[in-house]
Amino acid sequence: MASKTVPYVSTVAELRKIVARWRKAGERVAVIPTMGALHEGHLELVRRAQRKAERTVTSIFVNPAQFAPTEDFDKYPRTFEDDLAKLKGVGCDLVWAPRKDEMYPGGFATRIVPAGAAEGLETDFRPHFFGGVATVCTKLFTQTGADFAMFGEKDYQQLCVIRQIVRDLNLPLEIVGVPTVREPDGLAMSSRNRYLSADQRARAITIHHVITKVADAAGKGRGLEKAIEDGHAALTTAGFRQIDYVAVRDAETLKEWSKKAGRPGRVLAAAWLGETRLIDNIAVPAAKR
Amino acid sequence: MASKTVPYVSTVAELRKIVARWRKAGERVAVIPTMGALHEGHLELVRRAQRKAERTVTSIFVNPAQFAPTEDFDKYPRTFEDDLAKLKGVGCDLVWAPRKDEMYPGGFATRIVPAGAAEGLETDFRPHFFGGVATVCTKLFTQTGADFAMFGEKDYQQLCVIRQIVRDLNLPLEIVGVPTVREPDGLAMSSRNRYLSADQRARAITIHHVITKVADAAGKGRGLEKAIEDGHAALTTAGFRQIDYVAVRDAETLKEWSKKAGRPGRVLAAAWLGETRLIDNIAVPAAKR
Repeated sequence: MASKTVPYVSTVAELRKIVARWRKAGERVAVIPTMGALHEGHLELVRRAQRKAERTVTSIFVNPAQFAPTEDFDKYPRTFEDDLAKLKGVGCDLVWAPRKDEMYPGGFATRIVPAGAAEGLETDFRPHFFGGVATVCTKLFTQTGADFAMFGEKDYQQLCVIRQIVRDLNLPLEIVGVPTVREPDGLAMSSRNRYLSADQRARAITIHHVITKVADAAGKGRGLEKAIEDGHAALTTAGFRQIDYVAVRDAETLKEWSKKAGRPGRVLAAAWLGETRLIDNIAVPAAKR
Repeated sequence: MASKTVPYVSTVAELRKIVARWRKAGERVAVIPTMGALHEGHLELVRRAQRKAERTVTSIFVNPAQFAPTEDFDKYPRTFEDDLAKLKGVGCDLVWAPRKDEMYPGGFATRIVPAGAAEGLETDFRPHFFGGVATVCTKLFTQTGADFAMFGEKDYQQLCVIRQIVRDLNLPLEIVGVPTVREPDGLAMSSRNRYLSADQRARAITIHHVITKVADAAGKGRGLEKAIEDGHAALTTAGFRQIDYVAVRDAETLKEWSKKAGRPGRVLAAAWLGETRLIDNIAVPAAKR
């Protein structure tokens, strides 16, 4: 008898019991860390996970440790029943939905502080962010004992930071980056897009156009500074009220990039449309030979 | 043919290959983290480990991240051949002896920052210390994939900090604390004892006498302040040139202790004899009923 939704557990003990049963049967496990409010981008992570592992666990936890007091923790969308239905639809095996006091019990006092890929960009504007992400993701990895963890390229710096902590802490799992899923017009899917009014939604696409043009200039090796300048102007014209950054960086280390070095580059941007902060990124096209 | 010494590996890849073979045979693994310069206290950790797990791995790594620039990293005793012979003697299965660049490769940038049990005491005098310990121990746990890790009570605050990070980060192993091994006169065994001159060695035992008297007063619930005062005086008379602390704390949280709360207490002390810093600790005797 098929259940109407995917099963979920909310304690580490229950989670480990189920995973141990899978392991005993020789099955590999992939975890898909999310904060819920699932969209097609998340479901694509589950589908990719199913190609890597026999079992998939999607975690749903709105992690207070990665929000500053001024940020949108309270209004962050929570759509748990809808999320379960969507996960059932793509055949996810289990939802890991801990309560806050299961994730951070009384006396909790340990922080993982990433540097390297965590320096600059998001950290200049959200200094608390990657510490919160690194700590909760490490816990999701150790709680599930997963062989694979799936992360969207949409949060590109986050993906680089996670790769860094997994390497640095010798965490025994493989991090899999999955290309950003976009709306038909090119806007990167994001749980925060639902904050946008219809008018803002129409103008939001400018961020994608801007990084595409900057990436093109970077790839050609000419007009990069002007493309970034024009990009700032285009975002302002489109009604973005603040531009946190439009930057080209080394695609792995996120340090300064120059075409001369011959390494892959990545264009990353973050900007505010009303009260909504949008981020996006795209690869610098490889030089044609 | 029995080898003359215990086998050792120096890369994570080799280590994991051997441990995977053990796991496949259903064997459990205990790790004994050390900085080498092994003495009877370390060997006791190996013997205890053998009661918990089929396989024992002793790590030998003098961890630069837990020494301040002013501390004794360079002169810390390194006695690798002698350590291997001792470990062979007690039947340890494997030595994990990474080089520095295997533990901290180029680009390494992640720190684990413990709080809670890490606050005060050692941290007041060695603020860098537990961050370095927490990071390297987490790596030793993930590198070995051990089921158990053995720590001596000699470094009592360290044991509490390790328990804290294992709990906070959901690391899937059990931390086993092992009572301090002492010389016939009561001095806690320590790799740093070899720094002591014969004259200092004779006077070093005062630290053990002092904490014993303080613990006795704490257990009786009278004369605690005076016992601590007398202890300071006794250490100074014995030639200790600086007393970092003589303190009674909650045996688990290391927060302030009072007999009224009815919780286990621990007396901890740290003091300098010449250029050698000695630490020791002892349980507050439980109230007789």
